[in-house]
Amino acid sequence: MDEHFMKEALKEAKYAYELLEVPVGAIIVYDGKIIGRGHNKVETLKNSLSHAEIIAIDEASKSMDAWRLIDSTMYVTLEPCAMCAGAIVNSRIKRLVIGSLDPKRGCAGSLINIVNHPSLNHRVEVETGILEKECTEILQNFFKELRKIKEINHSKSLDK
Amino acid sequence: MDEHFMKEALKEAKYAYELLEVPVGAIIVYDGKIIGRGHNKVETLKNSLSHAEIIAIDEASKSMDAWRLIDSTMYVTLEPCAMCAGAIVNSRIKRLVIGSLDPKRGCAGSLINIVNHPSLNHRVEVETGILEKECTEILQNFFKELRKIKEINHSKSLDK
Repeated sequence: MDEHFMKEALKEAKYAYELLEVPVGAIIVYDGKIIGRGHNKVETLKNSLSHAEIIAIDEASKSMDAWRLIDSTMYVTLEPCAMCAGAIVNSRIKRLVIGSLDPKRGCAGSLINIVNHPSLNHRVEVETGILEKECTEILQNFFKELRKIKEINHSKSLDK
Repeated sequence: MDEHFMKEALKEAKYAYELLEVPVGAIIVYDGKIIGRGHNKVETLKNSLSHAEIIAIDEASKSMDAWRLIDSTMYVTLEPCAMCAGAIVNSRIKRLVIGSLDPKRGCAGSLINIVNHPSLNHRVEVETGILEKECTEILQNFFKELRKIKEINHSKSLDK
């Protein structure tokens, strides 16, 4: 079941890739149904808030008509940053399923643990490594392609 | 100048108070002009993302047509939570001016320091204690009033 829903989050990550955005996708599930989905759109919307997780929480809150997303699970292809980890705590999401870990800025335990902080008033069950290979590969392919585009642009500018 | 803009953030906190929301207000200033403002609307909008800071960042990004709010200053009446501190880092806000500290969940140094984390790729200049008395008082008055309302409701329910 976790793999099934992580595949849905990966679909979202692919939409981000097509927009030339860092490919991260997230979905929120309640009672077996997807109530929110999102993919990274920071560059497209010119808005730093437009991470996959924030867009998914916004949609889920609207579909539940509630700010507390009690008993819901978020599936996200990359470990959330501080903003998104804080948003997961604030929205009372019960369970967080992560594809790929982010040692540089992940806040579900890699850099900081916001989702299970002893002093915060909500703690999230965390599961990692679901479709880790696929979730990591899409990011690696994206950054490889981005470097190629940059190299091409750089040689073009030298040609001028 | 900091006091002048904190008064504007306090105006926002008062709007939240009138909505019976925890009274927190934020504004963002660039080149001497207010480019974003917000007050807490979590209950009103039934959305956990609707903190004062997030609403102000959203407005500022739209008015600047950019996700990087470089060289801008946020004035906020209460120290930001993890979500908002993360959003401040992600949006590259240069300076953060805080009215009242939040020892329980403040993430500009009180509980966690997200806005000046050695491993994150952006660090924010932080100033605290601007109009601290006024920013703290509005919160204390709010919670005092809330307790009274709860007591009245409780005695009414006992009368039934």
